[in-house]
This record gives sequence, C-alpha cells and structure tokens, in this order.
Amino acid sequence: MLQVQEAIERLLSASFEGPECERIDLLQATGRVLAEDVVAVLNVPPADNSAMDGYAVRVEDARAAGGTLPVSTRVPAGQAPSPLKPGTAARIFTGAEIPPGADAVVMQENCDAEDGNVIIRQMPEPGQNIRPRAQDIAAGDALLPAGHRLRPQDMGLLASQGLGTINVYRRVRAAVLSTGDELVEPGKPVGPGQIYNSNRYTMTGLLQDWGMDVVDLGVAPDDPARIEALFREAAEAADVLVCSGGVSVGEEDHVKPVVEKLGSLDLWRIAIKPGKPFAFGSVCGKPFIGLPGNPVSGFVTLLIIGRPFLFRMQGMAASPPIPAWLPARFNTPGSSREGYLRARYTDGGVELFGNQSSGVLMSTSRSDGLVRQPVDTDIAEGDRVEFLPYASFN
Amino acid sequence: MLQVQEAIERLLSASFEGPECERIDLLQATGRVLAEDVVAVLNVPPADNSAMDGYAVRVEDARAAGGTLPVSTRVPAGQAPSPLKPGTAARIFTGAEIPPGADAVVMQENCDAEDGNVIIRQMPEPGQNIRPRAQDIAAGDALLPAGHRLRPQDMGLLASQGLGTINVYRRVRAAVLSTGDELVEPGKPVGPGQIYNSNRYTMTGLLQDWGMDVVDLGVAPDDPARIEALFREAAEAADVLVCSGGVSVGEEDHVKPVVEKLGSLDLWRIAIKPGKPFAFGSVCGKPFIGLPGNPVSGFVTLLIIGRPFLFRMQGMAASPPIPAWLPARFNTPGSSREGYLRARYTDGGVELFGNQSSGVLMSTSRSDGLVRQPVDTDIAEGDRVEFLPYASFN
Repeated sequence: MLQVQEAIERLLSASFEGPECERIDLLQATGRVLAEDVVAVLNVPPADNSAMDGYAVRVEDARAAGGTLPVSTRVPAGQAPSPLKPGTAARIFTGAEIPPGADAVVMQENCDAEDGNVIIRQMPEPGQNIRPRAQDIAAGDALLPAGHRLRPQDMGLLASQGLGTINVYRRVRAAVLSTGDELVEPGKPVGPGQIYNSNRYTMTGLLQDWGMDVVDLGVAPDDPARIEALFREAAEAADVLVCSGGVSVGEEDHVKPVVEKLGSLDLWRIAIKPGKPFAFGSVCGKPFIGLPGNPVSGFVTLLIIGRPFLFRMQGMAASPPIPAWLPARFNTPGSSREGYLRARYTDGGVELFGNQSSGVLMSTSRSDGLVRQPVDTDIAEGDRVEFLPYASFN
Repeated sequence: MLQVQEAIERLLSASFEGPECERIDLLQATGRVLAEDVVAVLNVPPADNSAMDGYAVRVEDARAAGGTLPVSTRVPAGQAPSPLKPGTAARIFTGAEIPPGADAVVMQENCDAEDGNVIIRQMPEPGQNIRPRAQDIAAGDALLPAGHRLRPQDMGLLASQGLGTINVYRRVRAAVLSTGDELVEPGKPVGPGQIYNSNRYTMTGLLQDWGMDVVDLGVAPDDPARIEALFREAAEAADVLVCSGGVSVGEEDHVKPVVEKLGSLDLWRIAIKPGKPFAFGSVCGKPFIGLPGNPVSGFVTLLIIGRPFLFRMQGMAASPPIPAWLPARFNTPGSSREGYLRARYTDGGVELFGNQSSGVLMSTSRSDGLVRQPVDTDIAEGDRVEFLPYASFN
C-alpha cells in the first residue's frame, strides 16, 4: 500500500500544462490566484497624516505659547495643505495630510476651541497622532507573490496601491463524472437495486469551493464507445477529469479500459481510511483523478489527496489546511492506514460521529472536520489531536 | 466603552425582515442556507448490498459444500436480483443488491473461479461484506435543520435522498459604501492629499465570501442631498447597508446626519483593538452598519462584530469560527480592549506580524488569522492562545 504523503507527492510530481492568465477587475478577485508577483509602487500612506480629528501644531510653538495658539487654517482630508504658519495651529481631520511645519496632532478631546484659538489641555509629544508616510507600505516592497490566492484583505492591499485590475490565472475547468449502473439522478424516481448519485454533488461543491469551474458530465453511460466519446469531449473542454468509481478491479468497470486507451492509468491502494482505491492517470493529455465510488471515501480522498494537486493546477502555492490541535473526547485504536475521522467541534474539544463506517455518508454531514490519525497511533481521550476543520480546506 | 460580546448581542437583538425563500437546483447549493428542516424520506442504502466485488453466498451452504459452490447467477449493481438458488453462489459487484437467501459476500481476493465454480479459500462470517439497508440513513431521520449553510458533503447527503431541488433563503443583498473626500478609486491617478480606497474591496470580498450579493455604491459624494438620494436608493435595492468611515464625531462626516434623518444611528466606542468606533442603526427600515474608516479596524470589526449579524440576516444559525488553540511565539501585554492580533501560523504555533498598528494594512495580508486576546490578559511565549484562521470566518 502507498502511504498518503507518497500518493500526494506522486500527484504533485505529474506534469501538466500550467494555467493561462487573464486580467480581471480587482473587485472580482476574491478566491482568484495571482499570476505574477506584485511589488509596491506607492508609499502608503503617501504622506504623514493625522490619526485623529484635532489640531496640528508645532510642539515647540505650542509650548512657547503656553498651550494657546490661534487656529490659522483648516485641513480636511483629501487636500494638500500649505505650510503651517509659525505660532499657529491647523484644524485637522483623520486621514488629512499634516501641513509642513507641524510635528504633532492634539486630539480634539484634549483641547478646547475658543474665539479662534485652541487651548491645549494635554501637550502632545512630537510625532504624536501622526501616521508617518510609508508606514504601511514603502514603494518597492514585495506585496504578494505569484501563486497567492486572494482573500478580501489582499484585495484591500492591492487597492491601496491603486491597482484596478490584476493578472490572475484563468479558472481551472474540471470535468466531473460519476460511474455506476445503479446510480439515478436526484429528482427522478429510484427503481429496485438503484441508488441516488450523491458523489456528483459532493465533488461539484468541493471543486466550486476551490475556485474551479465544473464541466458536468453526469453519469458514465454503460457503453465503452460512448464513454470514449464523452472523455474525448471532456478532455477538450476541461483541464482535468475527476471521476468517482469505475476504476477498481471489478469486471463491471467500463471507465478503466477507456482511460487506458486514451492515456494511462495507475491504480493505487493507498494506506488511507476511509479511502484505499485511488486512480491517477491521463486522458488525451489531461490529468485524470479516479476517486473511490464510496461517497465517504471519495470525499476524504478528494480532500486529502486530490486537493493539493488541484490547488497546484490552479497555480497556487502549497496551502495545507491549518490544523486546530484540540483534545480528543474519544478513544480509537490505531491502524495500518492513516485515519481521517469525521469529528465535531464541541466545548473546545472534538468528538467523533458515532459511526465511522465508510458507508455512512451522514458522518460527513454531521461533522465539522477531520481528525488525522497517523498510522499505528492510538488516540486516547484527552490527547491533543490534529483536527482539520472543513473550512480549512477551502 | 462597550464590550465586544455586548456589541455583538446588540446587533443580534435588532429586528429586521427575515430573508425570503427560493427553490434552487441542488447542484448550485454550495454556500446556500437551508430554509426548512430536511427529514429523510428514503433508507440509504435502500437494501442490503455488497461492500466488495466477489461472490454472494449462504454461509451454511458454503460450509456444507466444503467451500466449493457452483456460480448460478451474476448480480451487477443497479439490478434487482432474484433469490439465490440454494447451494450456489452469485457473482456480485460492489454496490449490488444482495440476492435474497445470501447472507455474506466473499471478497474475490479470497477465492478462485474455476469451471463455473467458486472455490472459497477464506470462509466468511454471516453478514460479512454486506452493507445493511438503512445503514447510512433511515427514513424519518432528521437530516439537516433550517439555517444550516450547505457544504459540499451536505449536497451529497441531500442528493442521496433524491432531492433535486431545495428550498433555501434568497441571497442577502448588501449595499457597500465608503466615505472620505481623500479617497480615489484604484486605476485612477491619485492627487496630493489623496489615498486609494481599499475598504470597498475588503468589504466587498468579505461579504461575497459570506454568500451575499454586493450592491456597490462606491464613495459617498460630498453633498448631503446626494448622499440621501443614494441611501434611499440603496435601502430600496439592498437588505442591509455597510459603510466604512464617515460616522465618527468629526465635522467632515456627511453620512451621519443623513442616516439620522432617514432612520436612526447609535455610535459606540467598543472595547476592541483595532476598532473602537462602530455605528449601528437603520436607513429607511434597513439595518445600517458603520465601520471605522481605518482599513485594519474596519476589517477586524466587520469580521468580529458585523459577521454574526450578517450571518443571522442570511437565516443562518450561529456559526462561530472554530479556534485553533496554538502556542504563542510572542509576548504581548494585555490591554483594556479585547485584542485581535494579526498572526501567522508557523511550525505548529503562531507568530505576530511585526507591526500591529491599526494603520498597517499589510498586517492583514501578511497573516493567516487573528489571535483573540481577552481584556487585561497578557500573552507570554508558549501560552496556548485562541487563534482564529481567516478561513474559519467563512
């Protein structure tokens, strides 16, 4: 059996065509992946400015005048101020540029305005309440590297540099296919021996959450020639094929010979629980990921083994989920396979969904994340375990 | 000053019109919020089925025959099998329904096929390799409650029940507005005393990530009559107004009197760092959230104070971020305000971005999440601190 980390690395070492670039409006950028390093072109803030509403003064003048200064001007935000007349104060507002000659701002709460004068009750130190030029960013600073997936605050950062559009990787298109003669689509009546197709929905949701466009191929027809036509079409329309079921050793699998004909297929038994059977190959030059047909196994292997590869296909730097190390509220013996236990966050710890059988789809829905259980490692109540919230995979 | 929790609760206790419902295709459901409880209508699986490719047998018969049985039939997945002829085995495949009369499945790896017979090398126990009917879900089970935000695995679960469409809350529309005469939109030239508008981008990204539709109002014009017209329009088009800046005590704020005219406004000083000034009110009957104009403060207060309210507006049950309790790699003295330190996950611990000034927007981008520092609580290196990864807020 292949260890989980080894399987992840085999996928990552596969070569494929890198994603193309496109220039998009910054306002549409959340979740997109930068296609180039971004270096600061502007100082932020561009000039010393006021951190408060109050009065800009030269501390030496204010001290010399015993704290009372005539207010000679008014500096609202958004205007370039003229130099401060010596021996006077300037009314100033948050974000407004400090007039040349002033070296501190008195908070308005610490002074009184009277007859065109300001009476300072609490004398500032030089520099006080001034946000210095380039405090946030100096021109030439590296801002964000290519491969960074943009979050809202990154959009704000790029906006602060005046970037109205950015160069990102084009969304990766994933063709999604399910296999199994017993599968019926939701909304249709289910006959004897049939079950509803759930993998299509879980796979589509995950790939969409990961920023990919899904090309929906439905359920594989029960006919090699039609599967082949579908796959040729999919490889044309999509950048990667993700398939659930149909690639194990059973005789009823029509997908496997088609993949082998159009490209190549490696079938692995991975030391993962739930999971185990996993296929990786190519179809007409496009990567092919074959997940186990079991819904829980398919879900876990797509998260753990498929995700790092699919993130890399999108041009992203590695972004492993951030684990929460939390005390276990359960006991579970170790096994020869790396375990991914469906667990719930509760009172600062994690407890397991009762039935961890890979047949129980409810375990994925009644849980907040996965506890990673290393090979041959028992977990005892109170142990701090590596808990990966589902949100951390996004 | 208002404590953070108190501010959150004041927002949550505000009344507003609940979201409307709409029926959507399950395939489009990721991130949407269920508008009704969903109860199981089907058993999953609907019948006992095979967990393996192999042979379905009656264990008693197989024992009596010394492990060699004629193969009388073949049961692929997706077909209702006829009863197993006594004293025989049925070739069966993963997911296929167990024929009546059989009580175990022999893995194909544990037997040989020869001349129409199967020779069992390892005798199964009754029940072995059979997934029992209703193992995952029994009809009548509560599946998911109204207010649950759908994740990919929930889509899979609902699909397994044959639900092709579901009843969800309509997306909440948030009108986003920035204020400040010094603000210039990215892509345009910046003049002296001006800075680029970054809040619009951070706010838009967060609200979109939280599943809301953003109605972009741009920057508030410098004219009360135009602001009023804009606000009336926004309150018509959107369900909630989110505004950055413009609602503090400064004289240059044109937004505050307009909000007070069209509804009401409470201005709070919240014991949060960064943050502090925060406004909450209503405009023409729609909730109004006034964030501090400082980009870091606006980001943190929207995450911590705005988010619980905006999630509730979307019909969601409370979903606080799951914290990772990790060792601090830094020392920080406590303060009278609850701190939200921008921190980075590293080697199993968290370290701070160097400059925690609220003026430093880079601190939000160069970090993976927030460390919550309770009021008057020092943090010393090695302490386990409450780290909230940004992904946990989605």
